[in-house]
Amino acid sequence: MQERLTIVKVGGKVVENPETLTSFINDFSNIAGKKILVHGGGRSATAISEALGIETQMVDGRRITDAETLKVVVMVYAGLVNKNIVAQLQSLNKSAVGLCGADLDVVRAKKREVKDIDYGYVGDVVGVNVEQLLDLINNDVVPVVAPITHDGKGQLLNTNADTMASELAKALAMDYKVQLAFCFEKKGVLKDPEDDNSVIDTLDTELFQEYKAEGIISDGMIPKLDNGFAALKRGVDKIVISNTDGLKNGFSQGTNLKL
Amino acid sequence: MQERLTIVKVGGKVVENPETLTSFINDFSNIAGKKILVHGGGRSATAISEALGIETQMVDGRRITDAETLKVVVMVYAGLVNKNIVAQLQSLNKSAVGLCGADLDVVRAKKREVKDIDYGYVGDVVGVNVEQLLDLINNDVVPVVAPITHDGKGQLLNTNADTMASELAKALAMDYKVQLAFCFEKKGVLKDPEDDNSVIDTLDTELFQEYKAEGIISDGMIPKLDNGFAALKRGVDKIVISNTDGLKNGFSQGTNLKL
Repeated sequence: MQERLTIVKVGGKVVENPETLTSFINDFSNIAGKKILVHGGGRSATAISEALGIETQMVDGRRITDAETLKVVVMVYAGLVNKNIVAQLQSLNKSAVGLCGADLDVVRAKKREVKDIDYGYVGDVVGVNVEQLLDLINNDVVPVVAPITHDGKGQLLNTNADTMASELAKALAMDYKVQLAFCFEKKGVLKDPEDDNSVIDTLDTELFQEYKAEGIISDGMIPKLDNGFAALKRGVDKIVISNTDGLKNGFSQGTNLKL
Repeated sequence: MQERLTIVKVGGKVVENPETLTSFINDFSNIAGKKILVHGGGRSATAISEALGIETQMVDGRRITDAETLKVVVMVYAGLVNKNIVAQLQSLNKSAVGLCGADLDVVRAKKREVKDIDYGYVGDVVGVNVEQLLDLINNDVVPVVAPITHDGKGQLLNTNADTMASELAKALAMDYKVQLAFCFEKKGVLKDPEDDNSVIDTLDTELFQEYKAEGIISDGMIPKLDNGFAALKRGVDKIVISNTDGLKNGFSQGTNLKL
Protein backbone atom coordinates (compact mmCIF):
# COMPACT_ATOMS: atom_id res chain seq x y z
CA MET A 1 0.00 0.00 0.00
CA GLN A 2 1.20 3.50 -0.79
CA GLU A 3 2.14 5.83 2.05
CA ARG A 4 -0.02 8.90 2.53
CA LEU A 5 1.19 12.36 1.54
CA THR A 6 -0.87 15.37 2.59
CA ILE A 7 -0.58 18.52 0.50
CA VAL A 8 -2.22 21.54 2.06
CA LYS A 9 -2.76 24.74 0.17
CA VAL A 10 -3.48 27.60 2.52
CA GLY A 11 -4.60 30.99 1.40
CA GLY A 12 -7.05 33.75 1.92
CA LYS A 13 -7.39 35.48 5.25
CA VAL A 14 -5.68 32.59 7.09
CA VAL A 15 -2.31 33.69 5.72
CA GLU A 16 -2.79 37.44 6.20
CA ASN A 17 -3.53 37.36 9.89
CA PRO A 18 -0.50 36.45 12.07
CA GLU A 19 -2.70 34.76 14.69
CA THR A 20 -4.68 32.55 12.34
CA LEU A 21 -1.47 31.74 10.46
CA THR A 22 0.30 30.62 13.64
CA SER A 23 -2.69 28.55 14.66
CA PHE A 24 -2.82 27.01 11.17
CA ILE A 25 0.91 26.18 11.23
CA ASN A 26 0.43 24.42 14.56
CA ASP A 27 -2.40 22.32 13.17
CA PHE A 28 -0.49 21.64 9.97
CA SER A 29 2.58 20.48 11.87
CA ASN A 30 0.41 17.96 13.76
CA ILE A 31 -0.76 16.18 10.61
CA ALA A 32 0.74 12.71 10.72
CA GLY A 33 3.05 11.57 7.95
CA LYS A 34 4.65 13.25 4.98
CA LYS A 35 3.43 16.67 3.99
CA ILE A 36 3.87 19.67 1.74
CA LEU A 37 2.55 23.17 2.33
CA VAL A 38 1.66 25.46 -0.55
CA HIS A 39 0.74 29.00 0.37
CA GLY A 40 -0.69 32.07 -1.24
CA GLY A 41 -0.43 35.55 0.14
CA GLY A 42 -2.46 37.53 -2.35
CA ARG A 43 -3.88 40.12 -0.02
CA SER A 44 -0.45 41.05 1.36
CA ALA A 45 0.76 41.42 -2.22
CA THR A 46 -2.16 43.70 -2.96
CA ALA A 47 -1.43 45.78 0.15
CA ILE A 48 2.29 46.11 -0.65
CA SER A 49 1.49 46.93 -4.28
CA GLU A 50 -0.83 49.67 -3.12
CA ALA A 51 1.78 51.08 -0.75
CA LEU A 52 4.25 51.12 -3.66
CA GLY A 53 1.71 52.76 -5.95
CA ILE A 54 1.34 49.75 -8.25
CA GLU A 55 -2.17 49.06 -9.44
CA THR A 56 -3.57 45.56 -8.92
CA GLN A 57 -5.60 44.08 -11.77
CA MET A 58 -7.49 40.80 -11.36
CA VAL A 59 -9.31 38.77 -14.05
CA ASP A 60 -11.32 35.71 -12.94
CA GLY A 61 -9.46 35.57 -9.64
CA ARG A 62 -6.08 35.74 -11.37
CA ARG A 63 -3.61 38.56 -11.03
CA ILE A 64 -2.35 40.40 -14.08
CA THR A 65 1.40 40.42 -13.50
CA ASP A 66 3.42 43.20 -15.09
CA ALA A 67 7.15 43.52 -14.34
CA GLU A 68 6.60 45.61 -11.20
CA THR A 69 3.85 43.35 -9.90
CA LEU A 70 6.10 40.34 -10.46
CA LYS A 71 8.70 41.93 -8.16
CA VAL A 72 6.04 42.41 -5.51
CA VAL A 73 4.70 38.84 -5.65
CA VAL A 74 8.22 37.38 -5.59
CA MET A 75 9.02 39.52 -2.54
CA VAL A 76 5.80 38.78 -0.70
CA TYR A 77 5.19 35.12 -1.60
CA ALA A 78 8.74 33.73 -1.85
CA GLY A 79 10.14 36.11 0.75
CA LEU A 80 7.90 37.46 3.47
CA VAL A 81 5.17 34.81 3.70
CA ASN A 82 7.37 31.82 2.85
CA LYS A 83 10.19 32.52 5.29
CA ASN A 84 7.86 33.34 8.16
CA ILE A 85 6.09 30.01 7.71
CA VAL A 86 9.42 28.16 7.53
CA ALA A 87 10.72 29.86 10.69
CA GLN A 88 7.53 28.93 12.55
CA LEU A 89 7.72 25.30 11.42
CA GLN A 90 11.34 25.14 12.58
CA SER A 91 10.23 26.44 15.98
CA LEU A 92 7.92 23.38 16.15
CA ASN A 93 10.88 21.11 15.36
CA LYS A 94 9.72 20.35 11.86
CA SER A 95 12.50 20.50 9.32
CA ALA A 96 11.18 22.71 6.56
CA VAL A 97 12.57 24.34 3.46
CA GLY A 98 10.99 27.23 1.62
CA LEU A 99 10.98 26.80 -2.13
CA CYS A 100 9.76 28.60 -5.17
CA GLY A 101 9.64 26.77 -8.48
CA ALA A 102 13.17 27.92 -9.36
CA ASP A 103 14.72 26.36 -6.25
CA LEU A 104 16.07 22.93 -7.17
CA ASP A 105 14.10 23.49 -10.38
CA VAL A 106 11.06 22.02 -8.60
CA VAL A 107 8.38 23.64 -10.77
CA ARG A 108 9.03 24.85 -14.27
CA ALA A 109 6.47 26.90 -16.20
CA LYS A 110 5.92 28.60 -19.51
CA LYS A 111 4.90 32.25 -19.77
CA ARG A 112 1.24 32.27 -20.74
CA GLU A 113 0.66 33.17 -24.36
CA VAL A 114 -1.39 36.27 -24.99
CA LYS A 115 -4.85 35.40 -26.33
CA ASP A 116 -7.72 37.60 -25.20
CA ILE A 117 -5.91 38.80 -22.12
CA ASP A 118 -2.24 39.55 -21.53
CA TYR A 119 -1.63 38.11 -18.09
CA GLY A 120 1.97 39.33 -18.15
CA TYR A 121 4.53 37.30 -16.21
CA VAL A 122 2.16 34.45 -15.42
CA GLY A 123 3.41 30.90 -15.74
CA ASP A 124 1.55 27.75 -16.69
CA VAL A 125 3.23 24.73 -15.16
CA VAL A 126 5.05 22.47 -17.62
CA GLY A 127 7.03 20.25 -15.28
CA VAL A 128 7.46 19.18 -11.67
CA ASN A 129 10.81 17.82 -10.48
CA VAL A 130 9.46 14.77 -8.67
CA GLU A 131 12.90 13.38 -7.83
CA GLN A 132 13.98 16.49 -5.90
CA LEU A 133 10.67 16.69 -4.04
CA LEU A 134 10.86 12.99 -3.11
CA ASP A 135 14.42 13.50 -1.83
CA LEU A 136 13.14 16.14 0.57
CA ILE A 137 9.90 14.41 1.58
CA ASN A 138 11.61 11.05 2.14
CA ASN A 139 14.06 12.81 4.44
CA ASP A 140 11.12 14.18 6.46
CA VAL A 141 11.70 17.70 5.27
CA VAL A 142 8.50 19.70 4.71
CA PRO A 143 8.66 21.67 1.47
CA VAL A 144 6.94 25.04 1.91
CA VAL A 145 6.14 26.12 -1.61
CA ALA A 146 5.51 29.69 -2.79
CA PRO A 147 3.47 30.10 -5.98
CA ILE A 148 6.36 31.45 -8.05
CA THR A 149 7.74 29.40 -10.92
CA HIS A 150 10.48 29.88 -13.52
CA ASP A 151 10.89 29.24 -17.21
CA GLY A 152 14.34 27.65 -17.13
CA LYS A 153 15.75 30.69 -18.94
CA GLY A 154 16.15 32.88 -15.87
CA GLN A 155 12.67 34.38 -15.78
CA LEU A 156 10.54 34.08 -12.66
CA LEU A 157 6.79 33.74 -13.22
CA ASN A 158 3.68 34.11 -11.10
CA THR A 159 1.55 30.98 -10.83
CA ASN A 160 -1.79 30.54 -9.09
CA ALA A 161 -1.23 28.84 -5.73
CA ASP A 162 -4.17 26.47 -6.19
CA THR A 163 -2.69 25.39 -9.52
CA MET A 164 0.71 24.94 -7.90
CA ALA A 165 -0.78 22.67 -5.20
CA SER A 166 -2.76 20.71 -7.74
CA GLU A 167 0.27 20.22 -10.02
CA LEU A 168 2.38 18.96 -7.11
CA ALA A 169 -0.42 16.59 -6.08
CA LYS A 170 -0.71 15.17 -9.60
CA ALA A 171 3.04 14.78 -10.01
CA LEU A 172 3.39 12.91 -6.72
CA ALA A 173 0.29 10.71 -7.12
CA MET A 174 2.40 7.87 -8.57
CA ASP A 175 4.63 7.69 -5.50
CA TYR A 176 2.25 8.51 -2.69
CA LYS A 177 -1.44 8.23 -1.83
CA VAL A 178 -2.01 11.98 -2.03
CA GLN A 179 -4.68 13.93 -0.22
CA LEU A 180 -4.92 17.55 -1.24
CA ALA A 181 -6.64 20.07 1.01
CA PHE A 182 -7.46 23.62 -0.01
CA CYS A 183 -7.71 25.50 3.29
CA PHE A 184 -9.14 28.94 3.66
CA GLU A 185 -11.37 30.88 6.06
CA LYS A 186 -14.70 29.27 5.02
CA LYS A 187 -15.98 25.84 6.07
CA GLY A 188 -16.05 24.62 2.47
CA VAL A 189 -17.76 25.43 -0.81
CA LEU A 190 -20.92 27.25 0.17
CA LYS A 191 -24.30 26.93 -1.51
CA ASP A 192 -25.22 30.34 -0.15
CA PRO A 193 -22.26 32.72 0.20
CA GLU A 194 -24.16 34.55 2.95
CA ASP A 195 -24.63 31.38 5.01
CA ASP A 196 -21.38 29.99 6.39
CA ASN A 197 -23.11 26.72 7.29
CA SER A 198 -24.42 25.97 3.79
CA VAL A 199 -21.41 23.75 3.03
CA ILE A 200 -21.75 21.42 0.06
CA ASP A 201 -20.56 18.07 1.47
CA THR A 202 -19.79 16.38 -1.83
CA LEU A 203 -19.33 18.05 -5.16
CA ASP A 204 -19.10 16.08 -8.39
CA THR A 205 -18.30 17.44 -11.83
CA GLU A 206 -21.95 17.51 -12.86
CA LEU A 207 -23.08 19.48 -9.83
CA PHE A 208 -20.08 21.78 -10.28
CA GLN A 209 -21.18 22.65 -13.82
CA GLU A 210 -24.71 23.23 -12.59
CA TYR A 211 -23.65 25.51 -9.73
CA LYS A 212 -21.29 27.36 -12.01
CA ALA A 213 -24.06 27.99 -14.53
CA GLU A 214 -26.34 29.22 -11.74
CA GLY A 215 -23.64 31.55 -10.39
CA ILE A 216 -23.62 29.75 -7.02
CA ILE A 217 -19.94 29.00 -7.57
CA SER A 218 -18.00 31.95 -8.97
CA ASP A 219 -14.77 33.97 -9.01
CA GLY A 220 -11.68 32.48 -7.37
CA MET A 221 -13.55 29.30 -6.43
CA ILE A 222 -13.78 28.25 -10.09
CA PRO A 223 -10.04 27.81 -10.81
CA LYS A 224 -9.67 26.19 -7.37
CA LEU A 225 -12.29 23.57 -8.26
CA ASP A 226 -11.03 23.18 -11.82
CA ASN A 227 -7.64 22.39 -10.32
CA GLY A 228 -9.17 20.00 -7.84
CA PHE A 229 -11.09 17.99 -10.43
CA ALA A 230 -8.05 17.90 -12.72
CA ALA A 231 -6.03 16.43 -9.87
CA LEU A 232 -8.67 13.79 -9.10
CA LYS A 233 -8.64 12.71 -12.74
CA ARG A 234 -4.89 12.27 -12.53
CA GLY A 235 -4.88 9.88 -9.61
CA VAL A 236 -4.93 12.11 -6.55
CA ASP A 237 -6.75 10.13 -3.86
CA LYS A 238 -8.76 12.78 -2.02
CA ILE A 239 -9.51 16.47 -2.48
CA VAL A 240 -11.14 18.52 0.23
CA ILE A 241 -11.93 22.20 0.54
CA SER A 242 -12.31 23.33 4.13
CA ASN A 243 -11.32 25.77 6.81
CA THR A 244 -8.36 24.99 9.01
CA ASP A 245 -10.48 22.91 11.40
CA GLY A 246 -10.35 20.26 8.69
CA LEU A 247 -6.67 19.72 9.48
CA LYS A 248 -7.44 18.65 13.02
CA ASN A 249 -9.79 15.77 12.23
CA GLY A 250 -8.33 14.01 9.23
CA PHE A 251 -10.15 16.17 6.70
CA SER A 252 -13.52 14.66 7.55
CA GLN A 253 -15.36 17.96 7.13
CA GLY A 254 -15.61 20.53 4.36
CA THR A 255 -16.40 19.87 0.71
CA ASN A 256 -15.15 16.63 -0.85
CA LEU A 257 -14.69 16.46 -4.59
CA LYS A 258 -15.82 13.42 -6.58
CA LEU A 259 -15.64 12.74 -10.28
CA MET B 1 43.97 16.58 0.48
CA GLN B 2 40.76 18.43 1.11
CA GLU B 3 38.57 19.41 -1.82
CA ARG B 4 38.18 23.11 -2.50
CA LEU B 5 34.96 24.96 -1.68
CA THR B 6 34.54 28.52 -2.91
CA ILE B 7 32.21 30.80 -0.99
CA VAL B 8 31.49 34.06 -2.73
CA LYS B 9 29.75 36.93 -1.03
CA VAL B 10 28.45 39.42 -3.53
CA GLY B 11 27.07 42.78 -2.61
CA GLY B 12 27.12 46.45 -3.33
CA LYS B 13 26.29 47.78 -6.75
CA VAL B 14 26.93 44.40 -8.40
CA VAL B 15 23.63 43.08 -7.01
CA GLU B 16 21.56 46.19 -7.71
CA ASN B 17 22.23 46.42 -11.42
CA PRO B 18 20.59 43.62 -13.47
CA GLU B 19 23.42 43.66 -16.05
CA THR B 20 26.31 43.42 -13.63
CA LEU B 21 24.38 40.80 -11.64
CA THR B 22 23.84 38.62 -14.71
CA SER B 23 27.49 38.98 -15.68
CA PHE B 24 28.53 38.09 -12.13
CA ILE B 25 26.28 35.02 -12.07
CA ASN B 26 27.87 33.82 -15.31
CA ASP B 27 31.35 34.19 -13.86
CA PHE B 28 30.29 32.59 -10.59
CA SER B 29 28.78 29.59 -12.37
CA ASN B 30 32.11 29.04 -14.17
CA ILE B 31 34.10 28.65 -10.95
CA ALA B 32 35.25 25.04 -10.86
CA GLY B 33 34.22 22.80 -7.99
CA LYS B 34 31.83 23.18 -5.10
CA LYS B 35 30.48 26.59 -4.29
CA ILE B 36 28.13 28.68 -2.19
CA LEU B 37 26.84 32.13 -3.00
CA VAL B 38 25.94 34.59 -0.24
CA HIS B 39 24.33 37.82 -1.37
CA GLY B 40 23.36 41.15 0.04
CA GLY B 41 20.91 43.53 -1.51
CA GLY B 42 21.08 46.47 0.83
CA ARG B 43 20.49 49.25 -1.65
CA SER B 44 17.32 47.61 -3.00
CA ALA B 45 16.11 47.27 0.57
CA THR B 46 16.78 50.95 1.13
CA ALA B 47 14.92 51.87 -2.06
CA ILE B 48 11.90 49.70 -1.22
CA SER B 49 11.89 51.02 2.35
CA GLU B 50 11.86 54.56 1.01
CA ALA B 51 9.02 53.77 -1.39
CA LEU B 52 7.07 52.33 1.56
CA GLY B 53 7.85 55.35 3.71
CA ILE B 54 10.06 53.44 6.16
CA GLU B 55 13.12 55.31 7.35
CA THR B 56 16.50 53.57 6.97
CA GLN B 57 18.95 53.94 9.85
CA MET B 58 22.53 52.68 9.59
CA VAL B 59 25.17 52.51 12.34
CA ASP B 60 28.74 51.47 11.35
CA GLY B 61 27.50 49.98 8.10
CA ARG B 62 24.81 47.97 9.86
CA ARG B 63 21.11 48.46 9.42
CA ILE B 64 18.87 49.15 12.40
CA THR B 65 16.05 46.68 11.89
CA ASP B 66 12.67 47.53 13.37
CA ALA B 67 9.66 45.28 12.68
CA GLU B 68 8.77 47.05 9.43
CA THR B 69 12.36 47.10 8.19
CA LEU B 70 12.61 43.38 8.95
CA LYS B 71 9.66 42.75 6.63
CA VAL B 72 11.41 44.71 3.89
CA VAL B 73 14.76 42.92 4.20
CA VAL B 74 13.07 39.50 4.29
CA MET B 75 11.12 40.42 1.15
CA VAL B 76 14.07 41.89 -0.71
CA TYR B 77 16.92 39.59 0.36
CA ALA B 78 15.16 36.22 0.74
CA GLY B 79 12.58 36.95 -1.96
CA LEU B 80 13.44 39.30 -4.78
CA VAL B 81 17.24 39.09 -4.91
CA ASN B 82 17.53 35.45 -3.87
CA LYS B 83 15.00 33.98 -6.29
CA ASN B 84 16.28 35.98 -9.25
CA ILE B 85 19.78 34.67 -8.65
CA VAL B 86 18.49 31.09 -8.32
CA ALA B 87 16.46 31.35 -11.54
CA GLN B 88 19.50 32.65 -13.40
CA LEU B 89 21.72 29.86 -12.08
CA GLN B 90 19.13 27.29 -13.17
CA SER B 91 19.18 28.82 -16.65
CA LEU B 92 22.92 28.04 -16.70
CA ASN B 93 22.18 24.43 -15.74
CA LYS B 94 23.49 24.81 -12.22
CA SER B 95 21.25 23.21 -9.65
CA ALA B 96 20.72 25.89 -7.03
CA VAL B 97 18.55 26.37 -3.99
CA GLY B 98 17.80 29.67 -2.34
CA LEU B 99 18.02 29.55 1.42
CA CYS B 100 17.70 31.86 4.35
CA GLY B 101 18.91 30.74 7.74
CA ALA B 102 15.49 29.33 8.64
CA ASP B 103 15.41 26.98 5.65
CA LEU B 104 16.63 23.56 6.77
CA ASP B 105 17.69 25.44 9.92
CA VAL B 106 20.97 26.25 8.14
CA VAL B 107 21.87 29.34 10.19
CA ARG B 108 20.53 30.01 13.62
CA ALA B 109 21.05 33.34 15.37
CA LYS B 110 20.30 35.16 18.60
CA LYS B 111 18.67 38.57 18.64
CA ARG B 112 21.38 41.03 19.53
CA GLU B 113 21.15 42.30 23.09
CA VAL B 114 20.63 46.01 23.54
CA LYS B 115 23.77 47.70 24.85
CA ASP B 116 24.52 51.19 23.57
CA ILE B 117 22.45 50.73 20.45
CA ASP B 118 19.19 48.84 19.88
CA TYR B 119 19.77 47.19 16.53
CA GLY B 120 16.25 45.75 16.59
CA TYR B 121 15.69 42.42 14.81
CA VAL B 122 19.36 41.81 14.12
CA GLY B 123 20.73 38.33 14.66
CA ASP B 124 24.21 37.24 15.73
CA VAL B 125 24.96 33.78 14.39
CA VAL B 126 25.02 31.02 17.01
CA GLY B 127 25.05 27.93 14.82
CA VAL B 128 25.48 26.65 11.28
CA ASN B 129 23.89 23.35 10.24
CA VAL B 130 26.94 21.86 8.55
CA GLU B 131 25.28 18.52 7.85
CA GLN B 132 22.47 20.03 5.79
CA LEU B 133 24.86 22.26 3.85
CA LEU B 134 27.18 19.32 3.12
CA ASP B 135 24.18 17.29 1.89
CA LEU B 136 23.46 19.98 -0.68
CA ILE B 137 27.05 20.76 -1.66
CA ASN B 138 27.99 17.10 -1.99
CA ASN B 139 25.04 16.67 -4.36
CA ASP B 140 26.38 19.52 -6.50
CA VAL B 141 23.60 21.86 -5.47
CA VAL B 142 24.69 25.48 -5.07
CA PRO B 143 23.21 27.03 -1.93
CA VAL B 144 22.30 30.68 -2.58
CA VAL B 145 22.11 32.20 0.87
CA ALA B 146 20.22 35.35 1.83
CA PRO B 147 21.42 37.18 4.96
CA ILE B 148 18.32 36.40 7.01
CA THR B 149 18.57 34.10 10.01
CA HIS B 150 16.13 32.78 12.62
CA ASP B 151 16.19 32.24 16.37
CA GLY B 152 14.62 28.77 16.42
CA LYS B 153 11.53 30.22 18.10
CA GLY B 154 9.84 31.43 14.93
CA GLN B 155 11.49 34.84 14.71
CA LEU B 156 13.36 35.85 11.57
CA LEU B 157 16.39 38.10 12.06
CA ASN B 158 18.52 40.32 9.86
CA THR B 159 22.19 39.36 9.73
CA ASN B 160 25.03 41.13 7.95
CA ALA B 161 25.80 39.30 4.68
CA ASP B 162 29.57 39.48 5.21
CA THR B 163 29.09 37.88 8.62
CA MET B 164 26.85 35.20 7.08
CA ALA B 165 29.52 34.35 4.49
CA SER B 166 32.25 34.31 7.07
CA GLU B 167 30.25 32.08 9.44
CA LEU B 168 29.55 29.59 6.65
CA ALA B 169 33.24 29.60 5.69
CA LYS B 170 34.31 28.91 9.27
CA ALA B 171 31.73 26.17 9.76
CA LEU B 172 32.78 24.34 6.59
CA ALA B 173 36.55 24.76 7.04
CA MET B 174 36.79 21.32 8.68
CA ASP B 175 35.29 19.56 5.65
CA TYR B 176 36.63 21.60 2.76
CA LYS B 177 39.59 23.77 1.86
CA VAL B 178 37.54 26.97 1.85
CA GLN B 179 38.31 30.09 -0.12
CA LEU B 180 36.09 33.03 0.71
CA ALA B 181 35.76 35.93 -1.68
CA PHE B 182 34.03 39.19 -0.87
CA CYS B 183 33.04 40.59 -4.26
CA PHE B 184 31.85 44.12 -4.85
CA GLU B 185 32.33 46.91 -7.38
CA LYS B 186 35.86 47.94 -6.32
CA LYS B 187 39.08 46.14 -7.20
CA GLY B 188 39.89 45.48 -3.56
CA VAL B 189 40.54 47.36 -0.34
CA LEU B 190 41.76 50.77 -1.46
CA LYS B 191 44.45 52.85 0.18
CA ASP B 192 42.92 55.93 -1.38
CA PRO B 193 39.14 55.76 -1.79
CA GLU B 194 39.42 58.23 -4.67
CA ASP B 195 41.90 56.06 -6.58
CA ASP B 196 40.41 52.80 -7.82
CA ASN B 197 43.87 51.45 -8.56
CA SER B 198 45.27 51.93 -5.06
CA VAL B 199 44.48 48.33 -4.15
CA ILE B 200 46.20 46.95 -1.07
CA ASP B 201 47.53 43.58 -2.27
CA THR B 202 48.01 41.98 1.09
CA LEU B 203 46.50 43.10 4.34
CA ASP B 204 47.55 41.64 7.67
CA THR B 205 45.98 42.30 11.05
CA GLU B 206 48.66 44.81 12.01
CA LEU B 207 48.26 46.87 8.85
CA PHE B 208 44.49 46.64 9.26
CA GLN B 209 44.69 48.19 12.73
CA GLU B 210 46.98 50.91 11.41
CA TYR B 211 44.74 51.77 8.45
CA LYS B 212 41.68 51.71 10.67
CA ALA B 213 43.31 54.14 13.11
CA GLU B 214 44.27 56.43 10.23
CA GLY B 215 40.75 56.33 8.80
CA ILE B 216 41.97 54.78 5.53
CA ILE B 217 39.68 51.83 6.18
CA SER B 218 36.26 52.83 7.47
CA ASP B 219 32.50 52.22 7.45
CA GLY B 220 31.21 48.97 5.95
CA MET B 221 34.73 47.79 5.16
CA ILE B 222 35.50 47.34 8.86
CA PRO B 223 32.98 44.59 9.67
CA LYS B 224 33.85 42.95 6.31
CA LEU B 225 37.52 42.75 7.29
CA ASP B 226 36.76 41.82 10.89
CA ASN B 227 34.77 38.91 9.49
CA GLY B 228 37.55 38.00 7.10
CA PHE B 229 40.26 37.89 9.76
CA ALA B 230 37.99 35.95 12.11
CA ALA B 231 37.48 33.35 9.37
CA LEU B 232 41.23 33.07 8.69
CA LYS B 233 41.83 32.44 12.38
CA ARG B 234 39.31 29.63 12.26
CA GLY B 235 40.93 27.66 9.48
CA VAL B 236 39.56 29.21 6.30
CA ASP B 237 42.29 28.80 3.69
CA LYS B 238 42.08 32.01 1.69
CA ILE B 239 40.23 35.30 1.94
CA VAL B 240 40.16 37.76 -0.90
CA ILE B 241 38.32 41.05 -1.42
CA SER B 242 37.95 41.95 -5.07
CA ASN B 243 35.66 42.99 -7.86
CA THR B 244 33.99 40.33 -9.96
CA ASP B 245 37.00 40.04 -12.28
CA GLY B 246 38.60 38.13 -9.44
CA LEU B 247 36.20 35.26 -10.12
CA LYS B 248 37.55 34.75 -13.61
CA ASN B 249 41.18 34.20 -12.71
CA GLY B 250 41.20 32.06 -9.60
CA PHE B 251 41.08 35.02 -7.23
CA SER B 252 44.64 36.06 -8.04
CA GLN B 253 43.83 39.78 -7.85
CA GLY B 254 42.27 41.99 -5.20
CA THR B 255 43.22 42.22 -1.55
CA ASN B 256 44.39 39.06 0.20
CA LEU B 257 44.09 38.81 3.95
CA LYS B 258 46.89 37.39 6.07
CA LEU B 259 47.13 36.92 9.80
